[in-house]
This record gives sequence, C-alpha cells and structure tokens, in this order.
Amino acid sequence: MTGTTPPRPLRVASDGWSVEILDQTRLPHEVREVRLTTLDQAVEAIATMQVRGAPLIGITAAYGVCLALMTDDSDLALDDAIAALAATRPTAVNLQHALAAMREAVQAHPPGRRAEPAYAAAAALARTEVEACRAIGDHGLTILQELRQTRAPDRAVRVLTHCNAGWLATLEYGTALAPVYRAKEEGLPVEVWVDETRPRNQGWLTAWELAQAGVPHTVVSDTTAGHLIQRGEVDVVLVGTDRTTRVGDVCNKIGTYPLALAAAAADVPFYAAVPSSSIDWEATDWQAIPIEERGAEEVRWVRGRDPSGRPIQASPGPVETPVRNVAFDVTPARYLSGLITERGVCRATRAGLLRLFPERKR
Amino acid sequence: MTGTTPPRPLRVASDGWSVEILDQTRLPHEVREVRLTTLDQAVEAIATMQVRGAPLIGITAAYGVCLALMTDDSDLALDDAIAALAATRPTAVNLQHALAAMREAVQAHPPGRRAEPAYAAAAALARTEVEACRAIGDHGLTILQELRQTRAPDRAVRVLTHCNAGWLATLEYGTALAPVYRAKEEGLPVEVWVDETRPRNQGWLTAWELAQAGVPHTVVSDTTAGHLIQRGEVDVVLVGTDRTTRVGDVCNKIGTYPLALAAAAADVPFYAAVPSSSIDWEATDWQAIPIEERGAEEVRWVRGRDPSGRPIQASPGPVETPVRNVAFDVTPARYLSGLITERGVCRATRAGLLRLFPERKR
Repeated sequence: MTGTTPPRPLRVASDGWSVEILDQTRLPHEVREVRLTTLDQAVEAIATMQVRGAPLIGITAAYGVCLALMTDDSDLALDDAIAALAATRPTAVNLQHALAAMREAVQAHPPGRRAEPAYAAAAALARTEVEACRAIGDHGLTILQELRQTRAPDRAVRVLTHCNAGWLATLEYGTALAPVYRAKEEGLPVEVWVDETRPRNQGWLTAWELAQAGVPHTVVSDTTAGHLIQRGEVDVVLVGTDRTTRVGDVCNKIGTYPLALAAAAADVPFYAAVPSSSIDWEATDWQAIPIEERGAEEVRWVRGRDPSGRPIQASPGPVETPVRNVAFDVTPARYLSGLITERGVCRATRAGLLRLFPERKR
Repeated sequence: MTGTTPPRPLRVASDGWSVEILDQTRLPHEVREVRLTTLDQAVEAIATMQVRGAPLIGITAAYGVCLALMTDDSDLALDDAIAALAATRPTAVNLQHALAAMREAVQAHPPGRRAEPAYAAAAALARTEVEACRAIGDHGLTILQELRQTRAPDRAVRVLTHCNAGWLATLEYGTALAPVYRAKEEGLPVEVWVDETRPRNQGWLTAWELAQAGVPHTVVSDTTAGHLIQRGEVDVVLVGTDRTTRVGDVCNKIGTYPLALAAAAADVPFYAAVPSSSIDWEATDWQAIPIEERGAEEVRWVRGRDPSGRPIQASPGPVETPVRNVAFDVTPARYLSGLITERGVCRATRAGLLRLFPERKR
C-alpha cells in the first residue's frame, strides 16, 4: 500500500461494479488486493476466509448477490446466489441478515432492473455497519474512561482481546477494537493484550492493525490469557461476536468462553461488542447455535514466513494425527458484564437488549 | 529407533558414566539421542528443553551432578555444579529436590570417592520416580474405572490432557498419562483429547506417545478445550504439575488454569497427577511460586516440518511485535477434584496431603 489511503478490507472498484478485497489469508505479511467479479469468487472468498469477521462476511455476501445479478438477475438466479452464499459459513448470523436484506431490496424490482438497487442496498448495509462500529466505539470508550478512573489512574488501561474484531473484520473501526481506537483518538492511554488465537492466528491481524494505529500491544499465546487475568494484569476483556442470542449469550471465536470464565473468577469486566447485525433475535437456546467445524489442516499446518520471509507452512507434529477443529464457542450470558451495541451498553439479558431495541418486543 | 527397545528420555550409556538423552526439541519428527559428558551439557539440555517435564528435569540434574563430579569432586565443584543446575529453570521444584538429595548423598563421602555414590543416588532417584509414576497410574486407573461405570458405560472414557506428562516427561509411564497407559493395559476403553499446548506444542509429544501406545487420541488447539468440556465431550481432565504447594495449589504448564475453570463450570472432574517429588512442602502461597518467563521467539516462531519434511520455523506475524511468554500458571486448590499421588488420591488440601504424607506434619 502506498500513499495515505489506508487499506480497506472491501470496496467497490473504480469500474463501479467489481469488488476489491484485501486477501486476509496473506496478511499480516503481505497486503494484497484481490478482485471479485463473480458470485463463485465471492463464495470462495468467504469460505476460504480471504474475508472474515462477522460484519465483513455479511457485507461481502451482499456484494456477492450484486455480482450474481450482474450476470443474471432472474428470481432463480437470485435464489441460487443467496443459497450459495448462505452455505459458505454457518455461524455468523450477519450472513443471514445481509442476505435477507438483499432479497427484500431486490425483489421489489423486476428482473432486468435489479443490479442497481442491489448495489445501493449493499452500500447501505456497509454504511450501517460502519456507523454501528463508530457508535460501539463511543459507547465502549465510556467504559474505558471509567476503568481509567477506577482501576488505572496512574497507568494505561489494559485491554485483552481475542481473534480480530478490528477494521479488518468490519470495514472501519471494528467492533471490539473500536473503543480502543476511540481511546487512542481521545488520548486515553490504552494497551492491548492480543491472544494469538489458534488455529488461524488472527491475533496477528490484530497486532498488525494496532501497530499501524500506534496502539501499544503485546501478543500472547492463548494459554497465557487466563494467567494474566488471574494476576491482575488485565483491566477489561473486549471481544466480538458472530452470533448473539436474544437473551445475551455470545457465540464468538473458539477460545472466547475460557476468557469469560477467567474474567468472572477474577472479577474483571468482560464485554462483547455487538452490532445489532450480529444479534439472532430468534435464538433463545445457545446450545442450538450452529457451530462451524473446519478442516484439520488449519491445526496441523501453521502458515507464516520462514526466516528469509518466504511463505511457508510448518507442521509441529505428525500430519496423520487426528485433529478436531471447532471454530466457535458460546459464552453463556451470565458470564458477560454487558453488551456494547450501537445503541449503548446493556446487560446481557433479554430485558437489557429490549431496552435498547424495543422494536424487537413481540 | 530400531528393534523392540522403546526409546528412553534418559539413560546411562554403555560406558557406565555418560548420559544419553532423547533430544525432545527434535521430537516428534526425529528421534535423536544426544550424549551428555559434561556439567555444561547437562545445564544446556535442561535450559533449552532437550529434556523437559518436572520429574525428568530432576533426574537430569541429578546426573548433571554426577558428570560434574567425574571431573572434579571437590566441595567447591559440587557447590558450583548444584548452583549451575539450580539456575536452569525456576519453576519445577523437582529440580531443587533432586539437587538437595544429591548433595546429601555426596557430602557423606570424601572428595576423591564421590562419583560412585553420586551415580548410585541418581539411579535411586530415577527408580523412585518410575515407581511413583507406576503407582500414580494404578491410583488414577481407579478413577477412570469409576468414570467408566458412572459416565461412560457404553463408550470410552474421554480424558483431556495438557502439555506432555507422559513417559517423555518422566522415565516411564508418565504422571498424567500413567492412568491412561494403565487403562490401555487393562482393556478399559479410553480416548484422549490432547491440547496443542502453545507456544512449544508439547501436545504433539503427547500425541506421538499415545500413537506409539495405540491409544486413540485427537489433537485440538488450546482454544478448543473449554468448548469440549462445556459440551460434555470430556469425562475427566488429567494434568501434571511442576510444583504443588502444601495446600494443594497446582503450578503447571501455562494454560492449565483455564481448563480447571472450565471443568469446574461443567462439573467435570479435574485431577493433577502429583508425584511427591513435585510437592513443595514449604510453599503455602501460590502467588509466590516463581513463574518462569521464556523468550519471545518461542511464540514468534513455530517449529515444525515443511510439506517435504524439512525442519523449518514459521512466523505467523511480524517478528518485531512485542510478545510475552509465561511458561506456567497456577490452579488454586479449590478448582481441583483431587491430587493423584504415588500413595493414593487425596483432596487438594493440606489435610488431604498430610493424610497421605503424615511424616510432613510439623
């Protein structure tokens, strides 16, 4: 990347219709944009995690519908596109929400005239996500300011985060990282513990983001977070979410739940940053949330660079060893201090969510 | 390795004095023995984790004293050897116990005649550890048999373990894995979830051990264990220990504590396998246990093999990123279901330990 334009995880290209994404499987070592021109490419980008993060998955799917309609905007093609995109990844509910919104926006128009309203709907969705992230940043900043006064008067507020819930996972600001970026803007001293987040090591994406923003940070193995929380080295845990039930249970990247247990045991506040696009208003039973399981190769092979900078994969053990690779876990609502939504912070309960989203009462 | 002799992590060579160790930094990909002939080599082997595991660290240190005395068995040389070995790693109390035992055994003899009693003392120490491991296996087997009856009548008992507390970490049987090996011998069906155990990935050593023994096992990232415990896929958690306080707190490989929290939250039994050589009878305050911190490169660089089998290191992120690498954590006694010692299973309390070790009352 050159010049002053920050990279963006997704944007409509200068041709006005194709979509450029940052290939996140190459980050943080290599900043490479990939151009998507077909539905199949959009499906592939989501499934292989070239794009990732619940909000960005939703936005990419929305543009995937647009790309499909550029070729064929019949009802059948719309149905096929939505089905193909919906099947990419099961856990992030943003994907379903985005596809439902696209269907509604497109179906109001006759075949032959659907592409333009589709792009408008996708852009509106993206704008809404950015606004939600910015608002989450403001509300989360208040939490960090209070912690600064009560827990960290003489030093930086120490945040621990898991996976990547920054601008790479959204479009701007991020969810869990939005309060951190707002703190940086406001001159509130903040430091971030970054969980490595095996198996895909998205913590290194977070480290890369934070380095660009000049936010002090330290990467630790996932095994270390509990100890840091126990020993009083963490003031608050901030995580994202892929699906939050209407009673406040948070499904997020695998390894989130043990952080919540450690925070509860040490009386450390634990918040999820929850744009409403990540809330599943139908879900009441967290045990019923579909939990994606991914290929064993993500655990068997660690992707990175060798000492000379060449892209490589390293296997720390016998490649024939059986492996289980669960991508998400659920933190039951009782372990959360609260949810940071774009409309404010609420308790992780049905009543708490309905106070902020009264239109969901029924 | 050829023939039917199983590899051993340490043995006195056929010359009767030098010491052959398995270089565990090369396992599981390569089984290579290294010959130690000097104190410095023994110090290096422990510090660089060519040998690892609390009991094996103690045994190696004992033989390190022997190697030193082969060159110079004066009081000064003895003091220097013990000081150098004691400084290798701070957390495993076995090291201190072994060195104290060696000092006592050697000091009873005049300079010029100390090597022989030193080797005899080291051999006795090794024998004691093997016997302790075998006894731990028997007592732990009882736990697995009870779980089979109550929780797993129609299927295998599912054990989750962390790091490597098998024969590689001791000499034979292991500590946490000893009950698993005894179950295998007795025909009790058992399966093992193996935590990867970042940053050094000792879980792959455990997978290698279990594969050799024909015990079904599955490797998971450290982030996954909490989820498996929460969802009822684990019947019991078995871990080792590097130092257990006299009131039953267990200091073990980093990442153990969150497993205990997850087990407690799901009412899953959580046991530490504790040879008495790992008990610090002086320690009452778990927060005062010295916790080793190791180099950032262990987190930054993942060691393994590339797809062609060549040894490589892969860095998943920018190598200039700040990293913290804490090697151990402490699980407070209240989270443990019990301690499996060579004298039986006890509650993780002072009273529980004293019931089995009444000679420690004072």
